[in-house]
Amino acid sequence: MLILMRISATRLHRTISELSKIGRQPEGGLTRLTFSKNDIEARRYVISLIRSAGMNVFVDAFGNIIGRSRGVKDGVRTVACGSHIDTVPNGGRLDGAYGVLAGIEAIRTLHEHNANGGKALQIILFTEEEGARFGSFIGSRGFTRQLTQKAAYSLKDKDGISFRDAFKASSSLHLAPDAPSRLSRNMDSYVELHIEQGPILEHEHKSIGVVDSIVGLADLVIEIHGKAGHAGTTPLRLRQDALVGAAKIVTGVRIIAKATGGNAVATIGTLTVEPGASNVIPGKVTVEVDYRNSSAGGMKILNEKIILYAKRVGREENLQITHHLKSYTKPVRMSPRIMKIIEASADSLKLPSKRMQSGAGHDCQNMAQLTETGMIFVPSRDGISHTRKEFTEPKQLETGANVLLLTLQRLSNN
Amino acid sequence: MLILMRISATRLHRTISELSKIGRQPEGGLTRLTFSKNDIEARRYVISLIRSAGMNVFVDAFGNIIGRSRGVKDGVRTVACGSHIDTVPNGGRLDGAYGVLAGIEAIRTLHEHNANGGKALQIILFTEEEGARFGSFIGSRGFTRQLTQKAAYSLKDKDGISFRDAFKASSSLHLAPDAPSRLSRNMDSYVELHIEQGPILEHEHKSIGVVDSIVGLADLVIEIHGKAGHAGTTPLRLRQDALVGAAKIVTGVRIIAKATGGNAVATIGTLTVEPGASNVIPGKVTVEVDYRNSSAGGMKILNEKIILYAKRVGREENLQITHHLKSYTKPVRMSPRIMKIIEASADSLKLPSKRMQSGAGHDCQNMAQLTETGMIFVPSRDGISHTRKEFTEPKQLETGANVLLLTLQRLSNN
Repeated sequence: MLILMRISATRLHRTISELSKIGRQPEGGLTRLTFSKNDIEARRYVISLIRSAGMNVFVDAFGNIIGRSRGVKDGVRTVACGSHIDTVPNGGRLDGAYGVLAGIEAIRTLHEHNANGGKALQIILFTEEEGARFGSFIGSRGFTRQLTQKAAYSLKDKDGISFRDAFKASSSLHLAPDAPSRLSRNMDSYVELHIEQGPILEHEHKSIGVVDSIVGLADLVIEIHGKAGHAGTTPLRLRQDALVGAAKIVTGVRIIAKATGGNAVATIGTLTVEPGASNVIPGKVTVEVDYRNSSAGGMKILNEKIILYAKRVGREENLQITHHLKSYTKPVRMSPRIMKIIEASADSLKLPSKRMQSGAGHDCQNMAQLTETGMIFVPSRDGISHTRKEFTEPKQLETGANVLLLTLQRLSNN
Repeated sequence: MLILMRISATRLHRTISELSKIGRQPEGGLTRLTFSKNDIEARRYVISLIRSAGMNVFVDAFGNIIGRSRGVKDGVRTVACGSHIDTVPNGGRLDGAYGVLAGIEAIRTLHEHNANGGKALQIILFTEEEGARFGSFIGSRGFTRQLTQKAAYSLKDKDGISFRDAFKASSSLHLAPDAPSRLSRNMDSYVELHIEQGPILEHEHKSIGVVDSIVGLADLVIEIHGKAGHAGTTPLRLRQDALVGAAKIVTGVRIIAKATGGNAVATIGTLTVEPGASNVIPGKVTVEVDYRNSSAGGMKILNEKIILYAKRVGREENLQITHHLKSYTKPVRMSPRIMKIIEASADSLKLPSKRMQSGAGHDCQNMAQLTETGMIFVPSRDGISHTRKEFTEPKQLETGANVLLLTLQRLSNN
């Protein structure tokens, strides 16, 4: 029988509050871009918390900050948790930060109770998850050897400053630089706690989301080529109106996503009309289809159906259709064993949980390449994130942290 | 029995060619903005042509240039024709200029044959039809007393230069300044010859378009308010996607225009998405509906149906719909008597003609407030205008000018 521990709610809320002061903008949002003054200040603060929670601190070649149980041998299995503290410009106080701070609290509590089952516990603060300065997932892709140090160091921000130079300038972080290999060896499992960033848990009155997959994400650009013409003098029957074609694709894409079922979603968030004058028939329209699904097969089906339908619209409307895949990230499945452990942890706290996908990307999708991985969601009010309006009830933040605590306890005693 | 005269094709083509050299841009289009250096040079050239065609030249308070038969008494009825020589930036060589130059040739030919039936003939070159510097139809609205001199003079271009100052700076034009009232008195009729600027005559193999109406034109702005959200984490059923609503309105507007029948057209030429990121569900979309019809009742019906449908889409998709009329120009009917005369003139030259509406605005829509008005179209290759690609076969330019000649002859002998 495991002891039913609890994290310190007071300390959790205090550290969230303290970290949210770093990078605060006049409008109320937070801006912490990788290796910026704000990011370095935030990193120093988190390093101090990790030390006070009884861990040694390492920084690897990608700037990832790793806190690790003191006094454990190199060869023992490692149970890890983590997230990130960088933000989008004017982002919220919980996205990323919550998982890092709750993780530190959970490990501190486990250490205080000597409840780590002889395994090493690790908190990992991954560099640049959001991609607002050098690119998405640099830290977690580097940690899991999907991105080389050379490639990462040559990435440049919009001002031409390289990742290498920005990292070197933040020299105070290089306290114990370490290749990622040693700290990523002998991994047993990785768990990430995060706000949902969607409305499902709130809508269904669930406290805990047990993520079963991180969706694949494709950005499909479709160009619809018609013929510009005078809006007054060109009869309807002689038109090749690219916007009418685009409109059919917009409504069609939603129908296709709905008919695909499961967790498929598809969104057209940008649409540009050329030449774009009120009295000129649109000659060209470009749309970007963001489609997501939880399996590789499901992604392929969405791609084929959307392109097939767009081409059919082209034939119906006498328009030329061209398309290209601007980006593609494959879907990732979470570990069924860890999902069950998260559910059991929620059950022991009498919290209603729900298996669900993550529609957004997270560092754990890269960690899944290295070890068994799980992800815990707490509700987001109105599903809002990436703005200062991001909010989760304090009580729900506490219960999420306790589910993480119990999950790490079970994993380290398994 | 009237003599079957012909204009001088050689002179028509030469004057079109000469005028097209004034304001020529490096890319090949013509730019003659009102009272610009190019416009003044073009006006001087046209004044010389009017004089050589046996007319006196007057300039009224709006800068309209009026050529009038010499030796006729003030009190006689006036048969007029005309158009404009200002262009859009990088416009074509025929839009406006053709009607002015062919009109001068037609009046010259009538004078040579003493065939003006005792009536005064007038060529009118209206100031700024295109609206590329101070606003649309300034000359013809002024001539017909729909725009006061005071209002016209206070119009400013994008650099803050007033119409008054720009006009005064072109002092060499003030050769015989005259209030518009005298030259617009005792009008019998006004006929305008113009390129079609649409594809209908070419498509139906007709040489002459007999315009029965200038369409009304409305610019209806519709704003669709939804709720922005994360494209990955917001389930399809919980979305309020403003672009899906806009897409239904785009396809719906075309169906409404088609179902209205007659000459109704409706076009959405601009659509803006906010916030406009590929991974964010559109929270707001703004479209502008350009709709045109040949009767006031038809305009009203289009307006009501489009708004009714947009509101229905709003209810279906849980979106808020707001709308306002950005601009409205009422439809104008041409004189049935002049339509018949144009048709008879085309018949006597064995030219196939077709009654049609003008989907674009012209100075004659203002002249219709003052006198009986008619309009003659010649085909436009591919329906293209307002670019250097604007083109009409030389033979068709000649036949159009001859139809104008015979129409003016019939009107002045009626």
